[in-house]
Amino acid sequence: MIGIALIGASRFMNTQHVPAIKASGQFEIKAVYSRRQESAKETIDIIGHPVDLYADDLGENKSLADLLKREDISAVAIALPISVQADIVVKCLQHNKHVLSEKPIAKDIATAKSMMEIYESLRDTHSGLIWAVAEQHRFVPLHLEAKRLMNEKLGDISFFELTVTSVVDSDHPSFKSPWRKVPDYQGGFLLDGGVHALALLRLLVCSNTDFDSLYSSVRQIQPYLPPADTLVSKVDLKNGVSGTVTLSWGAAVRRLSLNVYGANGMLHVDGSNSVTFYPKESSLRSAPKPTPEVVTVTPKYEFQDAVLAEYQSFAESIQSGTIDEKLSPKEALADIAFIELSINSSDNHSPVKFTY
Amino acid sequence: MIGIALIGASRFMNTQHVPAIKASGQFEIKAVYSRRQESAKETIDIIGHPVDLYADDLGENKSLADLLKREDISAVAIALPISVQADIVVKCLQHNKHVLSEKPIAKDIATAKSMMEIYESLRDTHSGLIWAVAEQHRFVPLHLEAKRLMNEKLGDISFFELTVTSVVDSDHPSFKSPWRKVPDYQGGFLLDGGVHALALLRLLVCSNTDFDSLYSSVRQIQPYLPPADTLVSKVDLKNGVSGTVTLSWGAAVRRLSLNVYGANGMLHVDGSNSVTFYPKESSLRSAPKPTPEVVTVTPKYEFQDAVLAEYQSFAESIQSGTIDEKLSPKEALADIAFIELSINSSDNHSPVKFTY
Repeated sequence: MIGIALIGASRFMNTQHVPAIKASGQFEIKAVYSRRQESAKETIDIIGHPVDLYADDLGENKSLADLLKREDISAVAIALPISVQADIVVKCLQHNKHVLSEKPIAKDIATAKSMMEIYESLRDTHSGLIWAVAEQHRFVPLHLEAKRLMNEKLGDISFFELTVTSVVDSDHPSFKSPWRKVPDYQGGFLLDGGVHALALLRLLVCSNTDFDSLYSSVRQIQPYLPPADTLVSKVDLKNGVSGTVTLSWGAAVRRLSLNVYGANGMLHVDGSNSVTFYPKESSLRSAPKPTPEVVTVTPKYEFQDAVLAEYQSFAESIQSGTIDEKLSPKEALADIAFIELSINSSDNHSPVKFTY
Repeated sequence: MIGIALIGASRFMNTQHVPAIKASGQFEIKAVYSRRQESAKETIDIIGHPVDLYADDLGENKSLADLLKREDISAVAIALPISVQADIVVKCLQHNKHVLSEKPIAKDIATAKSMMEIYESLRDTHSGLIWAVAEQHRFVPLHLEAKRLMNEKLGDISFFELTVTSVVDSDHPSFKSPWRKVPDYQGGFLLDGGVHALALLRLLVCSNTDFDSLYSSVRQIQPYLPPADTLVSKVDLKNGVSGTVTLSWGAAVRRLSLNVYGANGMLHVDGSNSVTFYPKESSLRSAPKPTPEVVTVTPKYEFQDAVLAEYQSFAESIQSGTIDEKLSPKEALADIAFIELSINSSDNHSPVKFTY
């Protein structure tokens, strides 16, 4: 069992990480750190067995630094506000703790790259040190099933369309976090939520290639969603394939639709529990004809399954000393790079190369 | 009754124009011109009453020039291969015939503009002369219903996505025309079919604005569809709204989908006989919820209704001396401009302004 500490006591930590860590059977939760002890109460309840609490308002020997000195804790799970997380990830790595930190990897490319440089230099002396970035969309069973189906049936990709829209209003649970309401990082929800969409897209269309360039318009539609809530982009892959990406957290409807068109048909992924492959000659103009082969997977707890898979993969990475690509900072960096480069592209009214 | 002659004897002329002209009750078909008399047989059958046939292989007094001398013929309907049509449109206008010519207006912007200049100069002396370009997508009852619904319910447009894909193989009826199989004009099916999609898009999103700029990738996916069959574009409107346009005649599935997202919901138009408006807070991620108000129109002969409406509008334009905007060369020029500017944009890997 790998001794692990939880850094942060958010709703997502409580509802997703804790159950996944317990279900994985690979980790033993030893401690929880939160800025204020009050915030960690629910987390400790959910853990359900005695753990040590560390908090800034608990006095002596109860700081994060104290937690990081413990030798029985070799890993940490970090889920903190975007702008706070980077320094703490680095601090944990510098204490030779294996880290699983929540997406996005950082608030911008520069921060992420500087974190990655520090990590690489630490690996020079501690080669098995693992820094994993949790992006559950790379682990959602439905998405992996979509990829399998695509590889089996689609043939060469012709073009693609990704659309993710959401309605964020005062009732939106995420909007209750003050740091999300008044974001001190670029892109606001576009960064925070957009990386998930990009991870899904890249999982499916960037297998043996990557984005080559993009041209985006980034706008703020809802006055209460600064600095931006909507992104519309044309993307070209290095292999010559083009596609479109539309992301909006300022929309009036909720929608997830990824269509990947290929030589033999079209793969459709949406926010439901099914992936559809429409074979060649299908007509989606009225009733699909010929009847497409619909493949359905219905995991009971889709996201929880994904977070569980993240922890299983994190444990394997620690044991082998080699990171699972799906957890790698490099992949997570590409996701935020799309958002940052889109903002640059929009500001300059110019296509940008996908280099950073 | 307006005396009209048919120029060209294609399948579309026979199945769409002739029934629409007859149903309009505004025109009397006096004559048919075709390059070869043989080709016009079916057209004359469908007309069902005696008309004069003009053809290049009929000898003296039976040429197109002879037809155009007739004073009892004041209008012509022209449906000819794209590269042939421009000269004949001009010739008919120069003989003071009102013209309804099929889309696309011409093979390129330069040709269309030169035709429009000639037309304008002819109107200096014959102010009531009408040149109408037939684009049935601006007259399809479903599309007009979509526009009405949008104006009534959508609120300000946030962004939009248009996708039209088609499967063109050796069985495709359009592919049997030799001039379509080996196109001598830019864009191939992208020009020929794409203008319909652009007309639909512009009808809905360009009411009080127009395209400002676009950035497109234009590719040939199917080796038998030169010079290009696929276009992927990001489009910005002058009012700051952005959207995506994906057109492919080299796809493996058939699909038409136009989503216009606005302040109060989303309007969805597809190739079926219905338009759907999803009100605010709708979730399209699984079953739509709350139940969207679905408006359905089910015209018996949708395209025929549209062509009929074109002829009614053409007759009114002739009678009033003022062209219906939906038939205007200016609108038809904008549709082909999108395709030509997209090709330029793709060739130069650069966004282009929507000016021409």
